[in-house]
Amino acid sequence: MSWEETLDRYGTLIDEKLSNFFVQARNAAKIYHPYVEKIYSSMEEFVLRKGKRLASCSTLLTYRGYTGDINDKILKVCVGIELYRHSILIHDDFVDKDEFRRGEKTFHRMFIENDDERLGDGTAVFTGNMMYSLALQSIVNSGFAQKKFDRMLSMFLEGYRSVNESQTMDLLFEYKEPNVDEWYIMASKRAASLFKTTILVGAILGDAPETDLQPLGEAATHMGYSFDIQDDIIDTFASLEQYGRPPGGDLALGKKPLHVIYTLKLADQDGLNTLASLTSKEQINPEILEQVKEVIRGSGGLKAAKEKSRNHAEKAKALIAQTGLSRETKEFFASLITYIEKSLNWYR
Amino acid sequence: MSWEETLDRYGTLIDEKLSNFFVQARNAAKIYHPYVEKIYSSMEEFVLRKGKRLASCSTLLTYRGYTGDINDKILKVCVGIELYRHSILIHDDFVDKDEFRRGEKTFHRMFIENDDERLGDGTAVFTGNMMYSLALQSIVNSGFAQKKFDRMLSMFLEGYRSVNESQTMDLLFEYKEPNVDEWYIMASKRAASLFKTTILVGAILGDAPETDLQPLGEAATHMGYSFDIQDDIIDTFASLEQYGRPPGGDLALGKKPLHVIYTLKLADQDGLNTLASLTSKEQINPEILEQVKEVIRGSGGLKAAKEKSRNHAEKAKALIAQTGLSRETKEFFASLITYIEKSLNWYR
Repeated sequence: MSWEETLDRYGTLIDEKLSNFFVQARNAAKIYHPYVEKIYSSMEEFVLRKGKRLASCSTLLTYRGYTGDINDKILKVCVGIELYRHSILIHDDFVDKDEFRRGEKTFHRMFIENDDERLGDGTAVFTGNMMYSLALQSIVNSGFAQKKFDRMLSMFLEGYRSVNESQTMDLLFEYKEPNVDEWYIMASKRAASLFKTTILVGAILGDAPETDLQPLGEAATHMGYSFDIQDDIIDTFASLEQYGRPPGGDLALGKKPLHVIYTLKLADQDGLNTLASLTSKEQINPEILEQVKEVIRGSGGLKAAKEKSRNHAEKAKALIAQTGLSRETKEFFASLITYIEKSLNWYR
Repeated sequence: MSWEETLDRYGTLIDEKLSNFFVQARNAAKIYHPYVEKIYSSMEEFVLRKGKRLASCSTLLTYRGYTGDINDKILKVCVGIELYRHSILIHDDFVDKDEFRRGEKTFHRMFIENDDERLGDGTAVFTGNMMYSLALQSIVNSGFAQKKFDRMLSMFLEGYRSVNESQTMDLLFEYKEPNVDEWYIMASKRAASLFKTTILVGAILGDAPETDLQPLGEAATHMGYSFDIQDDIIDTFASLEQYGRPPGGDLALGKKPLHVIYTLKLADQDGLNTLASLTSKEQINPEILEQVKEVIRGSGGLKAAKEKSRNHAEKAKALIAQTGLSRETKEFFASLITYIEKSLNWYR
């Protein structure tokens, strides 16, 4: 089975549980106030938009890779993980002023009243918080035994804090040029942290041998780096059709993805001037974006970033192979990672 | 001892623990990145600004009121409560675009770079999240026995979600006129929820008789209403000197505190026009504010709100009196509530 078929198959189970979860949450909100009910309905729509469920499926497949089993307890944790992930996305989209998520409105754009952004912005901040609380409530209610539960809870608290720390650095880098080392410091708490949390939670709940936790954690970190680098390349190099929203958004905000950091190191003065003309926080001009892409390609910045992404992918695969995970789960991760590597070739 | 002396005395113990907590958090952040360390230092400064510690002292005194004791475990919970409270304040100040908190900059104003609000705004969103995670971590590490811990954790998750729900309604009311009932629905999850969480957590951890939980919860709710009504009156009627920031901020945002809701019901058309002239989201004009205050007074809106606040205060006192709390703790709550009642006379 390809990684996409695997995600489809197990993602459906998680989506069902998510739906049930929201029925209850909406009913509770209805008693409180119609506006709050509307918020919960919007949360549900936002979370249940066709996403890949990669985060929760990483947990589910790791758990299944050690136990051979899928049950209600682990599915409750998976519901918590999707809520956790989407609470972060709501805040992230808001801070980055993104308008689209999976081809539809971002959360803060769903509550704009009479062209006034205040209601939508505030509602997004508070709803992100409500969703994180819901995430932890689903995890608390999963019913895993105390010792496992304590480890899991600490990982979710630590993981959430890490992601938020990395996001403050990501913001800082809009104002200050980071070097490659600093990019890695930031990225170590971004997708790397999310994969680490989701995979290690699955392993711990699935009674993985303690000796597997170290290679799994490292593999998750490499997957995170590989994925982040690729994801950032997509934001610059995808077409509108491929991406579902206008490319170049990160650059327009002045963000510093790894391919830009390498370009800043490798490009000549003309190239740097072209790059600066886009990263001045204005609207994205498609012509200038083309010129900027040419600079990132020409300087070798794109190639250097892709090489890093491929390296991390290879390391992740090797580490996963040496664990005691089942063949199905190993194949899932290997085919997912191979896909990330391959997809690097599509963006040039 | 007056409630202020009591808060001084026990607040000092909590502040010490908070300081220690931040030494550890800052050291961990230092290893990560200087900017993140700076954020933790700013968190520490923000939390340790002279505040009343009313939330955490409510827990501490309730616990002490049933056990006669103060120990490291309950102080860790108190640290968590102050972090929890301040995480909410960071987001609240940001959404309301407040510039001052306790006479100094609000969190989002501390990170403005070159007149660009983006870095400060984003940092405030993410730091509020980090602080809520820290709050839960301190609570998780308190070491209370499983059953008590589970109840406490659920209350903190539910409480946080409630406060965020009420804040979305508070925002909505800027765009839509609520009636008195709707105000109460909103307020039932604001200060009322915070008092309920802090007091019931103290009671549960302190092994209060189960029969005390109901009156304590109701007392906390009445305290919350009484306090919210008074607090909102202060925002309209205090002088700059009394308040430490310009009064009228809530009205300028179009918020609908209870004294305004009554005024909307009671005032004549001239009065309503005057009120509308301030609540048009412009800068606060002190002369218009005086006129608006006159309308709120003249219509009977202020009097009606004050009467509600006093009623809730009286009910809270009566409920506290019938519990098994120690004399010291009963006196603390009674003198605090009496103070709220009295202070209503200062604003007219």
